[in-house]
Amino acid sequence: MAKVISKGIGTFYHHYPRVATIVTAHAKGRDNAMAVAWHTSISFSPPLYGISISPKRFTYQLIVDSKEFGVNFLPFEAAELVASVGGSKGREIDKFQKFNIATDKPVRTAVPILKDAYAAYECKLVDDRGYGDHRLLVGEIVAVHWLKESFAPEEILDLDKICPILYLGHDLYLTTSKDTARSLDREVYGKR
Amino acid sequence: MAKVISKGIGTFYHHYPRVATIVTAHAKGRDNAMAVAWHTSISFSPPLYGISISPKRFTYQLIVDSKEFGVNFLPFEAAELVASVGGSKGREIDKFQKFNIATDKPVRTAVPILKDAYAAYECKLVDDRGYGDHRLLVGEIVAVHWLKESFAPEEILDLDKICPILYLGHDLYLTTSKDTARSLDREVYGKR
Repeated sequence: MAKVISKGIGTFYHHYPRVATIVTAHAKGRDNAMAVAWHTSISFSPPLYGISISPKRFTYQLIVDSKEFGVNFLPFEAAELVASVGGSKGREIDKFQKFNIATDKPVRTAVPILKDAYAAYECKLVDDRGYGDHRLLVGEIVAVHWLKESFAPEEILDLDKICPILYLGHDLYLTTSKDTARSLDREVYGKR
Repeated sequence: MAKVISKGIGTFYHHYPRVATIVTAHAKGRDNAMAVAWHTSISFSPPLYGISISPKRFTYQLIVDSKEFGVNFLPFEAAELVASVGGSKGREIDKFQKFNIATDKPVRTAVPILKDAYAAYECKLVDDRGYGDHRLLVGEIVAVHWLKESFAPEEILDLDKICPILYLGHDLYLTTSKDTARSLDREVYGKR
Protein backbone atom coordinates (compact mmCIF):
# COMPACT_ATOMS: atom_id res chain seq x y z
CA MET A 1 0.00 0.00 0.00
CA ALA A 2 1.40 3.37 -0.99
CA LYS A 3 1.26 6.30 1.34
CA VAL A 4 -0.04 9.72 0.55
CA ILE A 5 2.04 12.66 1.73
CA SER A 6 0.13 15.85 2.55
CA LYS A 7 2.02 19.06 3.16
CA GLY A 8 -0.95 21.34 3.67
CA ILE A 9 -3.44 19.94 6.17
CA GLY A 10 -6.76 21.17 7.54
CA THR A 11 -8.51 19.44 10.40
CA PHE A 12 -6.61 16.27 11.07
CA TYR A 13 -7.99 13.11 12.63
CA HIS A 14 -5.16 10.62 12.10
CA HIS A 15 -4.27 10.74 15.79
CA TYR A 16 -7.72 9.71 16.98
CA PRO A 17 -9.35 7.85 18.75
CA ARG A 18 -9.00 9.83 21.94
CA VAL A 19 -10.81 9.41 25.27
CA ALA A 20 -13.74 11.85 25.24
CA THR A 21 -13.90 13.93 28.40
CA ILE A 22 -16.26 16.52 29.81
CA VAL A 23 -14.41 19.56 31.11
CA THR A 24 -16.25 21.58 33.74
CA ALA A 25 -15.86 25.07 35.15
CA HIS A 26 -17.55 27.43 37.58
CA ALA A 27 -17.26 31.21 37.94
CA LYS A 28 -19.50 34.04 39.06
CA GLY A 29 -22.39 31.75 39.88
CA ARG A 30 -22.32 30.00 36.50
CA ASP A 31 -21.43 26.39 35.79
CA ASN A 32 -20.55 25.01 32.40
CA ALA A 33 -19.48 21.77 30.76
CA MET A 34 -17.88 21.12 27.40
CA ALA A 35 -16.70 18.05 25.47
CA VAL A 36 -12.92 17.93 25.13
CA ALA A 37 -10.85 15.34 23.26
CA TRP A 38 -7.55 17.25 23.15
CA HIS A 39 -6.03 16.54 26.55
CA THR A 40 -3.01 14.83 28.05
CA SER A 41 -1.09 14.43 31.24
CA ILE A 42 2.02 16.59 31.24
CA SER A 43 3.92 15.79 34.46
CA PHE A 44 3.86 13.20 37.24
CA SER A 45 5.38 15.41 39.92
CA PRO A 46 3.67 17.74 40.42
CA PRO A 47 0.70 16.06 38.71
CA LEU A 48 -0.15 18.33 35.78
CA TYR A 49 -2.88 17.89 33.18
CA GLY A 50 -3.30 19.85 29.97
CA ILE A 51 -6.39 20.59 27.91
CA SER A 52 -6.49 22.46 24.62
CA ILE A 53 -9.61 24.52 23.92
CA SER A 54 -10.67 27.44 21.79
CA PRO A 55 -10.64 30.83 23.53
CA LYS A 56 -14.07 31.46 22.00
CA ARG A 57 -15.63 28.94 24.34
CA PHE A 58 -17.73 30.07 27.30
CA THR A 59 -15.92 27.46 29.39
CA TYR A 60 -12.60 29.13 28.59
CA GLN A 61 -13.87 32.40 30.05
CA LEU A 62 -15.06 30.64 33.21
CA ILE A 63 -11.67 28.95 33.62
CA VAL A 64 -9.80 32.22 33.14
CA ASP A 65 -12.06 33.90 35.70
CA SER A 66 -11.83 31.13 38.31
CA LYS A 67 -8.36 29.68 37.57
CA GLU A 68 -9.85 26.22 37.99
CA PHE A 69 -11.21 23.41 35.84
CA GLY A 70 -12.43 19.84 36.13
CA VAL A 71 -11.78 16.89 33.80
CA ASN A 72 -14.39 14.14 33.92
CA PHE A 73 -13.96 10.61 32.52
CA LEU A 74 -17.22 8.85 31.78
CA PRO A 75 -18.33 5.33 30.84
CA PHE A 76 -19.43 4.53 27.29
CA GLU A 77 -23.07 4.61 28.41
CA ALA A 78 -22.62 8.39 28.74
CA ALA A 79 -21.55 8.92 25.10
CA GLU A 80 -24.91 10.58 24.35
CA LEU A 81 -24.28 13.06 27.15
CA VAL A 82 -20.92 13.94 25.59
CA ALA A 83 -22.67 14.57 22.26
CA SER A 84 -25.33 16.68 24.00
CA VAL A 85 -22.76 18.75 25.87
CA GLY A 86 -20.69 19.07 22.69
CA GLY A 87 -23.64 20.22 20.62
CA SER A 88 -24.98 22.97 22.92
CA LYS A 89 -23.79 26.38 24.07
CA GLY A 90 -23.30 27.29 27.71
CA ARG A 91 -23.77 30.98 26.93
CA GLU A 92 -27.35 30.16 25.93
CA ILE A 93 -28.45 27.37 28.24
CA ASP A 94 -27.64 25.78 31.59
CA LYS A 95 -26.40 22.40 30.37
CA PHE A 96 -26.57 20.88 33.85
CA GLN A 97 -30.27 21.65 34.03
CA LYS A 98 -31.13 20.87 30.41
CA PHE A 99 -29.36 17.52 30.35
CA ASN A 100 -30.14 16.69 33.97
CA ILE A 101 -26.47 16.25 34.92
CA ALA A 102 -26.01 15.08 38.51
CA THR A 103 -22.92 16.33 40.31
CA ASP A 104 -20.77 15.52 43.31
CA LYS A 105 -19.25 18.21 45.49
CA PRO A 106 -15.69 19.23 44.69
CA VAL A 107 -13.24 19.30 47.59
CA ARG A 108 -10.42 21.67 46.61
CA THR A 109 -12.07 23.81 43.93
CA ALA A 110 -15.58 24.93 42.97
CA VAL A 111 -15.79 22.99 39.69
CA PRO A 112 -18.73 20.60 39.15
CA ILE A 113 -17.73 16.93 39.37
CA LEU A 114 -19.99 14.64 37.35
CA LYS A 115 -21.62 11.94 39.46
CA ASP A 116 -21.47 9.50 36.54
CA ALA A 117 -17.72 9.95 36.06
CA TYR A 118 -15.61 6.91 36.99
CA ALA A 119 -12.77 9.37 37.54
CA ALA A 120 -12.50 13.15 37.68
CA TYR A 121 -9.67 15.59 38.27
CA GLU A 122 -10.02 18.90 40.07
CA CYS A 123 -7.35 21.20 38.63
CA LYS A 124 -5.90 24.58 39.62
CA LEU A 125 -4.77 26.52 36.57
CA VAL A 126 -1.01 26.99 36.44
CA ASP A 127 -0.59 28.13 32.82
CA ASP A 128 -2.74 29.47 29.99
CA ARG A 129 -0.86 29.78 26.72
CA GLY A 130 -1.91 30.47 23.16
CA TYR A 131 -0.88 28.04 20.43
CA GLY A 132 -2.40 28.76 17.03
CA ASP A 133 -6.20 28.86 17.25
CA HIS A 134 -6.39 27.22 20.70
CA ARG A 135 -5.27 27.85 24.27
CA LEU A 136 -3.37 25.21 26.18
CA LEU A 137 -4.56 25.24 29.78
CA VAL A 138 -2.30 23.43 32.22
CA GLY A 139 -3.71 22.55 35.61
CA GLU A 140 -2.26 20.98 38.71
CA ILE A 141 -4.43 18.07 39.78
CA VAL A 142 -5.32 18.88 43.38
CA ALA A 143 -7.92 16.16 43.92
CA VAL A 144 -8.98 12.97 42.15
CA HIS A 145 -12.46 11.51 42.53
CA TRP A 146 -12.51 7.88 41.45
CA LEU A 147 -14.60 4.77 41.73
CA LYS A 148 -12.19 2.39 43.38
CA GLU A 149 -14.10 -0.68 42.22
CA SER A 150 -13.67 0.40 38.60
CA PHE A 151 -9.91 0.19 38.78
CA ALA A 152 -7.46 -2.70 39.03
CA PRO A 153 -4.98 -2.68 41.94
CA GLU A 154 -2.39 -0.71 39.94
CA GLU A 155 -5.06 1.99 39.47
CA ILE A 156 -5.42 1.24 35.79
CA LEU A 157 -8.96 0.95 34.47
CA ASP A 158 -10.65 -2.42 35.05
CA LEU A 159 -12.17 -3.11 31.64
CA ASP A 160 -14.52 -5.70 33.12
CA LYS A 161 -16.14 -2.86 35.02
CA ILE A 162 -15.84 0.20 32.79
CA CYS A 163 -15.76 0.79 29.05
CA PRO A 164 -14.26 4.22 28.35
CA ILE A 165 -15.63 6.56 25.67
CA LEU A 166 -13.37 6.88 22.66
CA TYR A 167 -13.97 9.63 20.14
CA LEU A 168 -12.92 8.98 16.55
CA GLY A 169 -13.91 12.36 15.06
CA HIS A 170 -16.95 13.38 13.01
CA ASP A 171 -19.42 12.50 15.78
CA LEU A 172 -18.33 8.85 15.94
CA TYR A 173 -17.89 7.20 19.34
CA LEU A 174 -16.79 3.72 20.28
CA THR A 175 -15.14 1.85 23.11
CA THR A 176 -12.33 -0.60 23.76
CA SER A 177 -12.23 -4.32 23.03
CA LYS A 178 -11.15 -5.82 26.33
CA ASP A 179 -10.63 -9.25 24.82
CA THR A 180 -7.70 -7.89 22.85
CA ALA A 181 -5.77 -6.82 25.95
CA ARG A 182 -2.16 -8.00 25.98
CA SER A 183 0.47 -7.57 28.66
CA LEU A 184 3.81 -6.84 26.99
CA ASP A 185 6.59 -6.45 29.53
CA ARG A 186 8.81 -3.70 28.14
CA GLU A 187 11.83 -5.06 30.01
CA VAL A 188 11.47 -8.35 28.18
CA TYR A 189 10.65 -6.86 24.77
CA GLY A 190 13.39 -4.27 25.04
CA LYS A 191 15.98 -7.06 25.29
CA ARG A 192 14.72 -9.29 22.50
CA MET B 1 -20.85 2.94 44.44
CA ALA B 2 -18.98 5.42 46.57
CA LYS B 3 -16.09 7.38 45.21
CA VAL B 4 -12.67 7.70 46.74
CA ILE B 5 -11.18 11.18 46.82
CA SER B 6 -7.38 11.37 46.67
CA LYS B 7 -5.62 14.64 47.34
CA GLY B 8 -2.07 13.41 47.02
CA ILE B 9 -1.48 11.43 43.85
CA GLY B 10 1.54 9.67 42.38
CA THR B 11 1.51 8.21 38.91
CA PHE B 12 -2.03 8.45 37.66
CA TYR B 13 -3.64 6.25 35.04
CA HIS B 14 -7.31 7.26 35.28
CA HIS B 15 -7.09 9.14 31.99
CA TYR B 16 -5.89 6.13 30.00
CA PRO B 17 -6.29 4.41 27.51
CA ARG B 18 -4.31 6.57 25.13
CA VAL B 19 -3.13 5.84 21.61
CA ALA B 20 0.45 4.56 21.86
CA THR B 21 2.78 6.36 19.45
CA ILE B 22 6.42 6.05 18.50
CA VAL B 23 8.16 9.41 18.46
CA THR B 24 11.25 9.62 16.26
CA ALA B 25 14.16 12.02 16.03
CA HIS B 26 17.40 12.45 14.15
CA ALA B 27 20.44 14.62 14.95
CA LYS B 28 24.17 14.45 14.34
CA GLY B 29 23.94 11.19 12.43
CA ARG B 30 21.92 9.42 15.12
CA ASP B 31 18.33 8.23 14.89
CA ASN B 32 16.17 7.31 17.84
CA ALA B 33 12.65 6.17 18.60
CA MET B 34 10.70 6.21 21.85
CA ALA B 35 7.21 5.14 22.95
CA VAL B 36 5.02 8.13 23.87
CA ALA B 37 1.46 8.05 25.21
CA TRP B 38 1.26 11.67 26.38
CA HIS B 39 0.42 13.58 23.24
CA THR B 40 -2.37 15.70 21.84
CA SER B 41 -3.23 18.02 19.02
CA ILE B 42 -3.09 21.64 20.15
CA SER B 43 -4.25 23.76 17.20
CA PHE B 44 -5.91 23.28 13.82
CA SER B 45 -4.44 26.39 12.18
CA PRO B 46 -1.52 26.24 12.10
CA PRO B 47 -1.60 22.46 12.74
CA LEU B 48 0.27 21.98 16.02
CA TYR B 49 0.93 18.76 17.89
CA GLY B 50 2.23 18.41 21.44
CA ILE B 51 4.19 15.60 23.08
CA SER B 52 5.26 15.47 26.70
CA ILE B 53 8.51 13.67 27.46
CA SER B 54 11.15 13.57 30.15
CA PRO B 55 14.23 15.73 29.51
CA LYS B 56 16.33 12.72 30.59
CA ARG B 57 15.47 10.92 27.37
CA PHE B 58 18.00 10.59 24.57
CA THR B 59 15.21 11.45 22.13
CA TYR B 60 14.70 14.76 23.93
CA GLN B 61 18.33 15.69 23.29
CA LEU B 62 18.03 14.78 19.60
CA ILE B 63 14.88 16.91 19.29
CA VAL B 64 16.51 19.88 21.00
CA ASP B 65 19.52 19.55 18.70
CA SER B 66 17.54 19.19 15.47
CA LYS B 67 14.35 21.15 16.30
CA GLU B 68 12.34 18.37 14.66
CA PHE B 69 10.40 15.28 15.65
CA GLY B 70 8.15 12.65 14.13
CA VAL B 71 4.97 11.10 15.57
CA ASN B 72 4.11 7.65 14.22
CA PHE B 73 0.73 5.92 14.60
CA LEU B 74 0.89 2.15 14.25
CA PRO B 75 -1.58 -0.72 13.92
CA PHE B 76 -2.22 -3.04 16.86
CA GLU B 77 -0.02 -5.70 15.22
CA ALA B 78 2.92 -3.42 16.10
CA ALA B 79 2.20 -3.34 19.86
CA GLU B 80 5.24 -5.55 20.50
CA LEU B 81 7.42 -3.03 18.69
CA VAL B 82 6.09 -0.28 20.96
CA ALA B 83 7.01 -2.40 23.99
CA SER B 84 10.47 -3.09 22.54
CA VAL B 85 11.10 0.58 21.79
CA GLY B 86 9.74 1.53 25.23
CA GLY B 87 11.94 -0.98 27.03
CA SER B 88 15.29 -0.10 25.46
CA LYS B 89 17.67 2.85 25.55
CA GLY B 90 18.75 4.77 22.46
CA ARG B 91 21.93 5.91 24.19
CA GLU B 92 23.01 2.26 24.32
CA ILE B 93 21.68 0.69 21.14
CA ASP B 94 20.48 1.57 17.64
CA LYS B 95 16.82 0.63 18.02
CA PHE B 96 16.21 0.76 14.28
CA GLN B 97 18.87 -1.87 13.73
CA LYS B 98 18.10 -4.01 16.77
CA PHE B 99 14.34 -4.17 16.13
CA ASN B 100 14.67 -4.16 12.36
CA ILE B 101 12.49 -1.06 11.94
CA ALA B 102 11.87 -0.19 8.29
CA THR B 103 11.54 3.50 7.44
CA ASP B 104 10.20 5.76 4.73
CA LYS B 105 11.98 8.93 3.71
CA PRO B 106 10.79 12.14 5.36
CA VAL B 107 10.01 15.05 3.03
CA ARG B 108 10.30 18.24 5.12
CA THR B 109 12.53 17.12 8.00
CA ALA B 110 15.17 14.47 8.65
CA VAL B 111 13.14 12.40 11.16
CA PRO B 112 12.65 8.68 10.49
CA ILE B 113 9.11 7.80 9.36
CA LEU B 114 8.09 4.25 10.23
CA LYS B 115 7.06 2.22 7.19
CA ASP B 116 4.49 0.33 9.25
CA ALA B 117 2.77 3.52 10.44
CA TYR B 118 -0.73 4.07 9.04
CA ALA B 119 -0.12 7.77 9.68
CA ALA B 120 2.89 9.84 10.71
CA TYR B 121 3.50 13.52 11.33
CA GLU B 122 6.72 15.35 10.55
CA CYS B 123 6.96 18.24 13.00
CA LYS B 124 9.14 21.33 13.29
CA LEU B 125 9.66 22.31 16.91
CA VAL B 126 7.99 25.63 17.79
CA ASP B 127 8.12 25.45 21.60
CA ASP B 128 9.93 23.49 24.31
CA ARG B 129 8.64 24.24 27.77
CA GLY B 130 9.20 22.67 31.17
CA TYR B 131 6.19 21.57 33.20
CA GLY B 132 7.05 19.65 36.37
CA ASP B 133 9.22 16.62 35.58
CA HIS B 134 8.50 16.69 31.81
CA ARG B 135 9.01 18.96 28.81
CA LEU B 136 6.11 19.81 26.55
CA LEU B 137 7.37 19.90 22.97
CA VAL B 138 5.05 21.62 20.51
CA GLY B 139 5.63 21.02 16.83
CA GLU B 140 4.06 22.37 13.69
CA ILE B 141 2.99 19.49 11.47
CA VAL B 142 4.74 20.19 8.17
CA ALA B 143 3.95 16.88 6.45
CA VAL B 144 1.59 13.97 7.01
CA HIS B 145 2.30 10.50 5.67
CA TRP B 146 -0.84 8.41 5.62
CA LEU B 147 -2.26 5.28 4.09
CA LYS B 148 -5.26 6.62 2.25
CA GLU B 149 -6.97 3.23 2.13
CA SER B 150 -6.89 3.03 5.93
CA PHE B 151 -9.04 6.11 6.32
CA ALA B 152 -12.71 6.82 5.65
CA PRO B 153 -13.54 9.73 3.30
CA GLU B 154 -13.64 12.25 6.18
CA GLU B 155 -10.04 11.17 6.98
CA ILE B 156 -11.06 9.44 10.17
CA LEU B 157 -9.63 6.00 10.76
CA ASP B 158 -11.43 3.16 8.95
CA LEU B 159 -11.73 0.57 11.71
CA ASP B 160 -12.38 -2.18 9.20
CA LYS B 161 -8.85 -1.61 7.96
CA ILE B 162 -6.85 -0.55 11.00
CA CYS B 163 -7.01 -1.29 14.71
CA PRO B 164 -5.08 1.39 16.61
CA ILE B 165 -2.83 0.60 19.59
CA LEU B 166 -4.28 1.75 22.89
CA TYR B 167 -2.08 1.83 25.98
CA LEU B 168 -3.77 1.34 29.34
CA GLY B 169 -0.70 1.72 31.56
CA HIS B 170 1.44 -0.93 33.30
CA ASP B 171 2.49 -2.57 30.03
CA LEU B 172 -1.09 -3.38 28.99
CA TYR B 173 -2.13 -2.81 25.38
CA LEU B 174 -5.46 -3.29 23.66
CA THR B 175 -7.43 -2.01 20.72
CA THR B 176 -10.85 -0.66 19.86
CA SER B 177 -14.10 -2.57 19.47
CA LYS B 178 -15.39 -1.42 16.08
CA ASP B 179 -18.75 -3.09 16.61
CA THR B 180 -19.52 -0.57 19.35
CA ALA B 181 -19.16 2.45 17.04
CA ARG B 182 -22.07 4.87 17.25
CA SER B 183 -22.70 8.03 15.28
CA LEU B 184 -24.16 10.65 17.62
CA ASP B 185 -24.90 13.88 15.80
CA ARG B 186 -24.04 16.64 18.27
CA GLU B 187 -26.47 19.05 16.59
CA VAL B 188 -29.30 16.63 17.30
CA TYR B 189 -28.19 15.68 20.81
CA GLY B 190 -27.49 19.28 21.76
CA LYS B 191 -31.13 20.14 21.14
CA ARG B 192 -32.77 17.22 22.91
